[in-house]
Amino acid sequence: MDVIQVNTASRPSTVYCGTGAFEKLKEESGALFVLTDCNVYKLYKEHLAAVCPGAPVCVVPAGERHKNVRTLLHIFDEMLAARLHRNAVLVAVGGGVVGDMGGLAAALYMRGIRVVQVPTTLLAQVDSSVGGKTAIDYGGVKNVVGAFWQPERVLCDPLFLHTLPSREIKCGLGEILKTGILDAAIGAKLWENKARLYELAFLEEIVADCVRFKARVVAEDETEQSGVRKSLNLGHTTAHALELAYGRRSHGEYVLIGMWLESFIAEREGVCSPAHAQYVRDTVALAEKRIPVFAGARQCVKYALLDKKNAAKDAVSVLLSAGKGEYAEYTLPAQRYAEYLSLLEARA
Amino acid sequence: MDVIQVNTASRPSTVYCGTGAFEKLKEESGALFVLTDCNVYKLYKEHLAAVCPGAPVCVVPAGERHKNVRTLLHIFDEMLAARLHRNAVLVAVGGGVVGDMGGLAAALYMRGIRVVQVPTTLLAQVDSSVGGKTAIDYGGVKNVVGAFWQPERVLCDPLFLHTLPSREIKCGLGEILKTGILDAAIGAKLWENKARLYELAFLEEIVADCVRFKARVVAEDETEQSGVRKSLNLGHTTAHALELAYGRRSHGEYVLIGMWLESFIAEREGVCSPAHAQYVRDTVALAEKRIPVFAGARQCVKYALLDKKNAAKDAVSVLLSAGKGEYAEYTLPAQRYAEYLSLLEARA
Repeated sequence: MDVIQVNTASRPSTVYCGTGAFEKLKEESGALFVLTDCNVYKLYKEHLAAVCPGAPVCVVPAGERHKNVRTLLHIFDEMLAARLHRNAVLVAVGGGVVGDMGGLAAALYMRGIRVVQVPTTLLAQVDSSVGGKTAIDYGGVKNVVGAFWQPERVLCDPLFLHTLPSREIKCGLGEILKTGILDAAIGAKLWENKARLYELAFLEEIVADCVRFKARVVAEDETEQSGVRKSLNLGHTTAHALELAYGRRSHGEYVLIGMWLESFIAEREGVCSPAHAQYVRDTVALAEKRIPVFAGARQCVKYALLDKKNAAKDAVSVLLSAGKGEYAEYTLPAQRYAEYLSLLEARA
Repeated sequence: MDVIQVNTASRPSTVYCGTGAFEKLKEESGALFVLTDCNVYKLYKEHLAAVCPGAPVCVVPAGERHKNVRTLLHIFDEMLAARLHRNAVLVAVGGGVVGDMGGLAAALYMRGIRVVQVPTTLLAQVDSSVGGKTAIDYGGVKNVVGAFWQPERVLCDPLFLHTLPSREIKCGLGEILKTGILDAAIGAKLWENKARLYELAFLEEIVADCVRFKARVVAEDETEQSGVRKSLNLGHTTAHALELAYGRRSHGEYVLIGMWLESFIAEREGVCSPAHAQYVRDTVALAEKRIPVFAGARQCVKYALLDKKNAAKDAVSVLLSAGKGEYAEYTLPAQRYAEYLSLLEARA
């Protein structure tokens, strides 16, 4: 089992990656309160009962559209009904949605209780469970109400990957390939193993690599102040805008599409060489062979304008890959960004 | 003007106490977003327009019962409508309710923006605006949803004290006398000036003393971990329970009543000497000559059991004054606490 420390200023966090990580829950002191969604609960009810017997379990509906105020209040209701004290530990067992909401509920209940993240999807294991970002969507804006709240522990157990549908594997690959574009060593490893990207044995290995990379970034810039952490938003401005406009596909798929689109911005705005832009697109193609067509994509500029990264009105900020292991924050007028979006409207 | 640094681990905070403090708002960089309540807005509309011209103003209903989810969401709606970016500053102009909600809205909007507190009541100036505690009430429990979020600046301007009704002065005196019980020097000053407790010139002076005391406590124990900050909860277990059960009176009055009641607990449980318990009650009497009678007070134990400080079921934790400048956390069975509450049911 890999044990990775995330040394953030606010609170150190330990990530366990590998078989048996889930069992670490048995070591927790304090009353446990489990948050999960109905899909995960159906599959892992017995496992949960074995690892944290007697703990109250709050089961929320599954899916991104439930990452909202209503579900958050329901979680508070159940925490209060369980008469949870501030020495209790919230255990979030699920994908990114459960992790984000569980983290936020823990950050706010009695001004903050401990949280243990048990990510059950590939996406959550390689990305969202590590680093303490928590949030809900509100008013049509993604993640606009949230907090930085570091989990005490993150337990990445391959146990949960066995039941994932291939759509979920592809979703996780979106963030894994993003990490490969940001980190040259991980990028090389992905290319060397391009035939094994859907193999569980390989994924188990790459999860720990991605967590180690993210732990370094988050330790350096916990709250996205200095900028290093911003690099993790590669492709995300476009991804979030498409998610708000079209829904349906997974976050990771939209990240792949976002990186594809933003590689053209980087190339044509002179932020990277044409060869590097092609490398980004080739890396995206390892998981997403054909970028889908989005009719009316340029309309999505209105969603991109809501993005938290923007600092000026009528301008869109994007994080661009400038070279292997290099990135740049780049702001362009909304009108010009909309023109780039039109690349998604039809294939030349 | 007194300038007091609050050196907390998460973020240093500066408190300005004195005439002209409000004008410091003019020095803020970044877009301002003003939160206030209808009472304060009626009185200080022109002052606000002069100090932060053009800033959007969100006016919420006045009163403790609006410190809830609904008002918080309304604030988010207005922040989104103003297209506020994460470099903006929320300016909370009002009493404890506005400060608590403004602080929480700032803590959560885009995972945290800067906040400047402009406390307009005596209570908020001496206590709630300093130290970064933010919260709303939820599910019948006070302050159960919240965060620690340090204000960048706190501007305590006596300008606002001129319009306060005497009920509000008495409310502030509740926390001032609490500070006097915790800090021997402040206690002595209050006794020396017992005839001047309602004079603005004296209150202006004591505000800075109380802020300096609180700054020391908060710097030592920002998130109430080590225990020093818990001392600020003197009288508050009972105060919060009575507030939930009876409403009507101000927080500060309930703190006075809570300290009175808890002095009997301290004395009879052997936590302090009878002489010190009498000193606490005499200090309370400087502002509250006659403790009111509460019919059925022992029923309030059910509210005390909801208190965040409790760590065990069916037991109530109280913070007791053990001597001048000394305090002790003390836990007693709910049943015994209820018997003490009955002291409020009739005067012997």
